[in-house]
Amino acid sequence: MRSYHVNSGAGIEGLSVKEHANPVPGTGQVLVAVKAVSLSYRELMVLRGNYVLPVKPDVIPVSDGAGEVVALGPGVHGVKIGDRVAATLFPSWQDGPFGLQHLPQRGGSLDGMLTELALISEDSLVPIPDHLSYQEAATLPCVGVTAWNALTGDGVGLRAGETLVTQGSGGVSLFALQLGKALGARVIATTSGPDKARRLIELGADEVIDYRATPDWAAKVVELTGGRGADRVVDVAGLLDQSLKAVAVAGHVACVGFVSGAAQPLDPGVLFASGAALRTVAVGSRNQFLAMNRAMEVNRIHPVIDREFTFEEAPDAYRFYASGKAFGKVVITL
Amino acid sequence: MRSYHVNSGAGIEGLSVKEHANPVPGTGQVLVAVKAVSLSYRELMVLRGNYVLPVKPDVIPVSDGAGEVVALGPGVHGVKIGDRVAATLFPSWQDGPFGLQHLPQRGGSLDGMLTELALISEDSLVPIPDHLSYQEAATLPCVGVTAWNALTGDGVGLRAGETLVTQGSGGVSLFALQLGKALGARVIATTSGPDKARRLIELGADEVIDYRATPDWAAKVVELTGGRGADRVVDVAGLLDQSLKAVAVAGHVACVGFVSGAAQPLDPGVLFASGAALRTVAVGSRNQFLAMNRAMEVNRIHPVIDREFTFEEAPDAYRFYASGKAFGKVVITL
Amino acid sequence: MRSYHVNSGAGIEGLSVKEHANPVPGTGQVLVAVKAVSLSYRELMVLRGNYVLPVKPDVIPVSDGAGEVVALGPGVHGVKIGDRVAATLFPSWQDGPFGLQHLPQRGGSLDGMLTELALISEDSLVPIPDHLSYQEAATLPCVGVTAWNALTGDGVGLRAGETLVTQGSGGVSLFALQLGKALGARVIATTSGPDKARRLIELGADEVIDYRATPDWAAKVVELTGGRGADRVVDVAGLLDQSLKAVAVAGHVACVGFVSGAAQPLDPGVLFASGAALRTVAVGSRNQFLAMNRAMEVNRIHPVIDREFTFEEAPDAYRFYASGKAFGKVVITL
Amino acid sequence: MRSYHVNSGAGIEGLSVKEHANPVPGTGQVLVAVKAVSLSYRELMVLRGNYVLPVKPDVIPVSDGAGEVVALGPGVHGVKIGDRVAATLFPSWQDGPFGLQHLPQRGGSLDGMLTELALISEDSLVPIPDHLSYQEAATLPCVGVTAWNALTGDGVGLRAGETLVTQGSGGVSLFALQLGKALGARVIATTSGPDKARRLIELGADEVIDYRATPDWAAKVVELTGGRGADRVVDVAGLLDQSLKAVAVAGHVACVGFVSGAAQPLDPGVLFASGAALRTVAVGSRNQFLAMNRAMEVNRIHPVIDREFTFEEAPDAYRFYASGKAFGKVVITL
Repeated sequence: MRSYHVNSGAGIEGLSVKEHANPVPGTGQVLVAVKAVSLSYRELMVLRGNYVLPVKPDVIPVSDGAGEVVALGPGVHGVKIGDRVAATLFPSWQDGPFGLQHLPQRGGSLDGMLTELALISEDSLVPIPDHLSYQEAATLPCVGVTAWNALTGDGVGLRAGETLVTQGSGGVSLFALQLGKALGARVIATTSGPDKARRLIELGADEVIDYRATPDWAAKVVELTGGRGADRVVDVAGLLDQSLKAVAVAGHVACVGFVSGAAQPLDPGVLFASGAALRTVAVGSRNQFLAMNRAMEVNRIHPVIDREFTFEEAPDAYRFYASGKAFGKVVITL
Repeated sequence: MRSYHVNSGAGIEGLSVKEHANPVPGTGQVLVAVKAVSLSYRELMVLRGNYVLPVKPDVIPVSDGAGEVVALGPGVHGVKIGDRVAATLFPSWQDGPFGLQHLPQRGGSLDGMLTELALISEDSLVPIPDHLSYQEAATLPCVGVTAWNALTGDGVGLRAGETLVTQGSGGVSLFALQLGKALGARVIATTSGPDKARRLIELGADEVIDYRATPDWAAKVVELTGGRGADRVVDVAGLLDQSLKAVAVAGHVACVGFVSGAAQPLDPGVLFASGAALRTVAVGSRNQFLAMNRAMEVNRIHPVIDREFTFEEAPDAYRFYASGKAFGKVVITL
Repeated sequence: MRSYHVNSGAGIEGLSVKEHANPVPGTGQVLVAVKAVSLSYRELMVLRGNYVLPVKPDVIPVSDGAGEVVALGPGVHGVKIGDRVAATLFPSWQDGPFGLQHLPQRGGSLDGMLTELALISEDSLVPIPDHLSYQEAATLPCVGVTAWNALTGDGVGLRAGETLVTQGSGGVSLFALQLGKALGARVIATTSGPDKARRLIELGADEVIDYRATPDWAAKVVELTGGRGADRVVDVAGLLDQSLKAVAVAGHVACVGFVSGAAQPLDPGVLFASGAALRTVAVGSRNQFLAMNRAMEVNRIHPVIDREFTFEEAPDAYRFYASGKAFGKVVITL
Repeated sequence: MRSYHVNSGAGIEGLSVKEHANPVPGTGQVLVAVKAVSLSYRELMVLRGNYVLPVKPDVIPVSDGAGEVVALGPGVHGVKIGDRVAATLFPSWQDGPFGLQHLPQRGGSLDGMLTELALISEDSLVPIPDHLSYQEAATLPCVGVTAWNALTGDGVGLRAGETLVTQGSGGVSLFALQLGKALGARVIATTSGPDKARRLIELGADEVIDYRATPDWAAKVVELTGGRGADRVVDVAGLLDQSLKAVAVAGHVACVGFVSGAAQPLDPGVLFASGAALRTVAVGSRNQFLAMNRAMEVNRIHPVIDREFTFEEAPDAYRFYASGKAFGKVVITL
């Protein structure tokens, strides 16, 4: 079987394919024939050498993947051969809040999913909802679960009738829009240009703000909400001053990372004046993954895929993803 | 102006119309020209004399109504003449949990809404969502808010992807179905007969169980949920043993009262074996009313009205409601 | 090494000791030299044959125990030889709500702790707080964790300044009293006779109600709380009508089982009139165990032990426990 | 009757005393003979002209006060003459989250408590716990309630066994320490110098870190918590980078304002790396005040008062408060 390998910081050209003997599942492990993986911003960071968590040498990259169970190790009872499964990003994070003990992650300190066969512990798999293809399921583990956590991971979470602001059309933002609508919220999406605006509306956005035409999008959010501000903002760029300006008193800003490198220092006075809460979100537990899958299944949500590549074209997939042109996920199909 | 009046236990024939001078709003009060009221099971109990809370002599009956603001007392700042408003059932219950201090209620220890003009304190009004008529808004205060509280009033509440069971087609159940879908849940509705089943499906129910054809509907719920049981049941009949059988371990049964008189003693062993929680729900706070309105507005929910009557036909409205034939609310339009 | 064994329903005289070869820990397992076990009501039920969950034939009984790690299997990283540990009752319940997948339990469908050496998976162990002896730690897994869950397992949980009612001096009730005081609550304990009353006061109870002198203890609770009722009742007897009478509107009754056989059917009207919530509680997750241990450590709580027996005296320990005379836990020291 | 008056920005020398006719309570109002008021940092900001919320011209300053009810307006039922009461800071914030409608506040856009007689709406009073003097009760409305909200206002809140960090010996920090102990937490207090350290230990602090001797106090917190970090930090200085360094993954930083002027811009990378949540806290609702009072009563907490001044010495009280030398509250007794 073949796997891609790479070292942290080696860049796209550092990706290499190696042949291995087929692995044999140990106690509690399952052998998964990977059918599809998807790229997220973390994959670029791994290749660029600026990922925030440790990356092991010669790692099999890519945290997100889905496939079919083809062999079972001893003591596996919850899945069977032929099951369609996706893998969780943090294999030991089952439920409850994140802790330092959950740090090991696929495609980082552990081998990832850009491989024909992956050994995965049973308790870090989730079943794929029936209405999703392998390609669609492969988009969920990182940005799908992050969006779900951003919307629901703080006690009550986003509730029907509340207003959610999503930013742009990156992976987390599109999932936040779709899941936000499933939760019954009003969704205001920021974007650039009429084409993306149209597609966001098609995905369910109630209103769209073009931040090129309206640079002070936060003021526009306040206006659209009758002076109150949004109940929740999913901040993907680290522009917290703006997000805090857009959010209501006692509202919630979920801070999911800084994909654009545009992050700015936050003025504590702005934070305090907002009266809001700011919570960092990084993926989620297996239980959150399962709950999101149920929400996707009941509400017939299909992840947005921009383009698919073959296993051999994986470097091209990385390049296309890095171009920032994708509207939706970039998938590699095996 | 004219009002209906009645004494607890006087029955439908005890309803009488009286003429009054137009009331003048005091400090913090608003005069509302009532446009519509709706009947709930509590109205029958008041007339039958078996209502659970005190009823004042010669009360103006009916807790639920909506209308137009026609005069303002001193110190009123939050509403203006011409505003479309609905009244909360417990005027002093603003937010947070219910307490004994909130007991006074419209159409019980306080005068209700079956009157042409009603004096209402500003802080016990809510604005009517734009997409609703007065008739529709008049259906909300008792059973709409109760359904919203049953679904959301316990911390996290019902979440997208979870399974909700509603029972029959009474007022609370229909709102629970519609609001449950707005919250993104899978809804299984029990009912009797194919006509009602069809209408429940039209309202959004994912599955319907005819409890005449399937008396052990709880077992059917367990089957439909892959052995797990529903995450939440809104129990409207006091058949708690059945509801607890249908609910998942760590699930939630909201107990909203016993409209049918069919309530049965609960075996503590059944409760304990269920591993579930059971919570009593009676209407909700003004803040819950406002939140529900936002949910209805964003998700374009229209309450189900079966039939409308005129002010003069109010006794007929009561009789029709008492017949149990209505699918949806019975409304009196002024 | 020696273990006790018993069949469900065989009674105390059915207990037998067997010799075994020392077990060898497998992947993820730890060998624990058991130092102490404690008896709870579930142990009597297992011997009487009326336990609510499955019991395997010839089971090693007793769910609760503590000991020293003496050998490690492959892949164990979180504990080391010499560590002082206690075992969780449901080995697979790590965090979050209970589910059917967590049903296997020690001393029931799995072997328990009345053995000199126990094989335990690493992730079902918790470290023993430094200030506790093995005997004290052995009292925690069933009734300690149950009490903690009853007080804190429903979202916000019991909070400083609220009023808690505990019933009698069984294991759960004494832990609820001690943990309730650590949480800053006012604790009203019901009891029988001045001796027990004195000891409950010594343990921190703010008030004691002798239910022999005051059979309507619920009314007394309402009186002591200025007509409001208690915020929380930990019901250990299934006398839910009384507990619901004692609890405030919007209060919480945690139903932890029916140790006395005195459980009575619950009138749904009483439930509804209470305006309260009723939640079943059965032990708790490993994470709840860890949280409770931190609470015990910070607040220097020592479990109450009535009497200790030797391994050989185990049948006497059962008999003494069954007599109902113990004030606090019955422990068997190895 | 006499009142102090001041204009925003007029400084301590701008305080003047005026004579007024005794006010007469209107509907829902109560006349309170003020017995004591206390100073918080907001009072200095009002006099310095840099308060964050509007201040009316010639305002009666000081938000915090307590006194005796001496007259009742029409429609007042919940208090009676002779009752000992304290006033809430935001009179209209009864329960639930803060909103823009709650902005009017005593000693700001509304008259405050530095007056012999104050007109106060019944629903913005709370009864004083029996064990507290008027002077002690006068310390509660601003910093006491803020501390309670910082510890408990975010869903679950601080729980027994968790670790809390308090900073220095300002008003909020001392209440956070005392209330944190009442909630059963381990409290680590930062401070400067052995005298203050000793007094913090006397108040219940489990550990004290002298930030002069240990400038990297955050690292010390991490060390004292075995590498985990504190569960909660009450940040009073806007040094969020440090607070986020001291807090555990999934921990909570309550940001209560910037009393020292030392606030620094927050690096979003530090926020994201912390994995924590940051919540702004400004006082709390009347219901939170009531809950805090119950916690203080059950746990016999007495606020720390440094020094008392007479009504005539009010300017001296301001000067002493501004000196920053007080350990505990500065009170003016009438």
